[in-house]
Amino acid sequence: MATPGVLTPQAEDFPKWYQDVVAKAEMADNGPVRGTMVIRPYGYAIWERMVAEVDRRIKRAGAQNAYFPLFIPQSYLAKEAEHVEGFSPELAVVTVAGGEELAEPIVVRPTSETVIGEYMAKWVQSHRDLPLLLNQWANVVRWEMRPRLFLRSSEFLWQEGHTAHASAADASAYALKIHTEVYNDFLLNVLAIPTWLGIKPPSERFAGATNTMTCEGMMKDGKALQMATSHELGQNFAKAFDIVFQSEAGQSEHCFTTSWGASTRMVGGLIMAHGDDSGLVVPPLIAPIQVVVLPVRDNDETVDAAVAQLNEALTNADVRVTVDKGRGSFGRRVTDWEIKGVPLRLEVGPRDLAEGNVTFVRRDTNEKIPVVVADAAATATSLLAAIQHDLLLAATARRDAKTVAVDTIEEAIAVAQDGFARLPWSLVTPEVEKRLKGEAITVRCLQRADGSIPADEAEEGLTCIVARSY
Amino acid sequence: MATPGVLTPQAEDFPKWYQDVVAKAEMADNGPVRGTMVIRPYGYAIWERMVAEVDRRIKRAGAQNAYFPLFIPQSYLAKEAEHVEGFSPELAVVTVAGGEELAEPIVVRPTSETVIGEYMAKWVQSHRDLPLLLNQWANVVRWEMRPRLFLRSSEFLWQEGHTAHASAADASAYALKIHTEVYNDFLLNVLAIPTWLGIKPPSERFAGATNTMTCEGMMKDGKALQMATSHELGQNFAKAFDIVFQSEAGQSEHCFTTSWGASTRMVGGLIMAHGDDSGLVVPPLIAPIQVVVLPVRDNDETVDAAVAQLNEALTNADVRVTVDKGRGSFGRRVTDWEIKGVPLRLEVGPRDLAEGNVTFVRRDTNEKIPVVVADAAATATSLLAAIQHDLLLAATARRDAKTVAVDTIEEAIAVAQDGFARLPWSLVTPEVEKRLKGEAITVRCLQRADGSIPADEAEEGLTCIVARSY
Repeated sequence: MATPGVLTPQAEDFPKWYQDVVAKAEMADNGPVRGTMVIRPYGYAIWERMVAEVDRRIKRAGAQNAYFPLFIPQSYLAKEAEHVEGFSPELAVVTVAGGEELAEPIVVRPTSETVIGEYMAKWVQSHRDLPLLLNQWANVVRWEMRPRLFLRSSEFLWQEGHTAHASAADASAYALKIHTEVYNDFLLNVLAIPTWLGIKPPSERFAGATNTMTCEGMMKDGKALQMATSHELGQNFAKAFDIVFQSEAGQSEHCFTTSWGASTRMVGGLIMAHGDDSGLVVPPLIAPIQVVVLPVRDNDETVDAAVAQLNEALTNADVRVTVDKGRGSFGRRVTDWEIKGVPLRLEVGPRDLAEGNVTFVRRDTNEKIPVVVADAAATATSLLAAIQHDLLLAATARRDAKTVAVDTIEEAIAVAQDGFARLPWSLVTPEVEKRLKGEAITVRCLQRADGSIPADEAEEGLTCIVARSY
Repeated sequence: MATPGVLTPQAEDFPKWYQDVVAKAEMADNGPVRGTMVIRPYGYAIWERMVAEVDRRIKRAGAQNAYFPLFIPQSYLAKEAEHVEGFSPELAVVTVAGGEELAEPIVVRPTSETVIGEYMAKWVQSHRDLPLLLNQWANVVRWEMRPRLFLRSSEFLWQEGHTAHASAADASAYALKIHTEVYNDFLLNVLAIPTWLGIKPPSERFAGATNTMTCEGMMKDGKALQMATSHELGQNFAKAFDIVFQSEAGQSEHCFTTSWGASTRMVGGLIMAHGDDSGLVVPPLIAPIQVVVLPVRDNDETVDAAVAQLNEALTNADVRVTVDKGRGSFGRRVTDWEIKGVPLRLEVGPRDLAEGNVTFVRRDTNEKIPVVVADAAATATSLLAAIQHDLLLAATARRDAKTVAVDTIEEAIAVAQDGFARLPWSLVTPEVEKRLKGEAITVRCLQRADGSIPADEAEEGLTCIVARSY
């Protein structure tokens, strides 16, 4: 149910709707320094659940967490030519510390590729030390000229995985494993966001990578958001940082490395992939609050007793439940919980209670489901599963309806006004890419005809997806 | 069992022993920028468990996690006079970002007091918004001239709690709750480190605080380590940052705030409180690996089958178990696991197996416990509980034996060579504090006669504990 006046409608001004939701749902605020972000408790609780889910999958894929320093000597970045070129304009530089001008300026990490490369070189000696599978959860800084909360902030939180392997095949296979079993599995099965998987065209690769895989999600306005990327770095970083191992045959060889990351940007993706004119719509598996219990009348003993009983029953059923604290009118409270996107509202009123009932309201469909009090916990559990399932179905239907196969650049441009165009990769010459860019359209990913991830852009018969993007 | 040559013995050179253990147990390395630290997977796995245990307790105490920016405008720090004075010499300052000289230099947070104060002022309006209970997990930077891994690093990881309350009494009570139910409970019941709880003397308070509570742990060399601190800030920060609320009576009043933190320094404390000449001794509840299964003979089918079976049985019993990968001699492998402080080693040899047995070896006592294979998982569980219990008993006995009540400053100086001296606080005039400092001895905390935490330093009959410290 749309609430006039609280949020700008999506159709009127999608970016303004996004800003409104982030503020009104108390997700985040702008920080005092340009482009930085204060993540408020409700937004951070969503991020914490993302971290837990992604971290579990990373550990299952065999990587170990570690922590590398925030500060990197400026000289490190210069060791890999493309890398320094890619990051130079975005760096924040410390020149004074401990009350003195520093002899060598220090860079605040924009990514930890270089410093991790340096330590991998120390830790890797023999083929028996490989693969070396590391991950870190950290903040990184990339100065942003057009910051937007969660989507592009000067400081953001992320995980960055960095691995070293004895062969190109092993490195490729591991990057693919992370991309599918960690990222795509999480996006699909927890965030309920279906993505198009593929590789980036050479023009859009990570600085220093030989191949970049991406998960491209579709937002409600038909634009693309890159949700996570996984890079094969070939031997580029290993050569720049001397990451060398003694092979089984006794020869000294350079490792093949990978890196892969996902960030607080996913929170922005969650907002834009599911949100509607009433606010956030948070999938139950990631929701900090799954059910809010809302008394329809305050200071009513029967209602209060039922609320306490329901709170306990839901808690015991492992449902993340909150009781509304009761400030403002009932309508205002409903609106506030809708903005926060809590999957289920449980309304407890004296009239329903007289008949032994309470009423669930689904945030995604606004459907009202009356149940007897004793069944509330079991019903909550099954409704939460249904909502999770239905959100993925709905998002998949939207994505598929707005992904249109075309044969010409003109059609692609038309489709990409508010959707994804799929066209033969062979049509996209450098000139075409330039022309698309003039229309703010980029190549989001290359796929095989069956939708699978190609090994490289030279494969025959690839299609590509082009769209506007965040 | 001491392993000659691998580690410097504690009695010979304790700081060198510490350095050796941190390196050989693969806990951490020095970072490339002065004073920074690379936390390696084994060290980080210990920190991750610390985070999980402390975070659970913080949430139980009602605080919510949030995230505030790394970068703080320099002007913020100047708002609270003592605060800026306390931190100025330790700051790292960003002067260039996005390719340009900045108009106002940016400070890398040494703590987030000031920026959180600014946002609390926005979020708090009414007495109904109080208490506001926030916590964040973050990295902070304080430039260190004499860095030591985990104990004093230019960048460290920590949590910092920041709360705002309607009354001084409520603020005091909450700081005390955190200090006892979060920090001390964790230190005692997870890290098995008994501490002396008390308040800091005015000379040792946090910059801007009206009261600072501390947990002081005793290290194996008799020195003190401040493991966590909780501060009452009175209305100092609320006045500097205009954190004002409308009281129930309708008046505009300044909040009372608190802050409290614990850091990666606790990893250093864990090492020095329990470690011995053979390396780390990690209490089972915090150990990333609780049992290592060690085949006594490689490439033996019977042994391999038993190892696989034991690994599965222990995993099913929720024991964190690892099978030794088998590089180097058996003796070398034993030494390596001892250095890492894994609580239990499970030796699996063909001779024992022929009789149906395997042998547990306790890291803390070196005791050998033969068991029949079928009982291994149950025995591991009970031995781990026993080790956790015994480590706390042993640490408490050490602390108590080396905490000596004295009546004179001369005796205090003598005792504090390798222990804690307890003396009447009334004896410690500013001149005495200065004299003690000349001997590298400081007042660690003030306590009531019964060991409880006083409200302030002016209470009658307080004792104080003085010691050398990290």
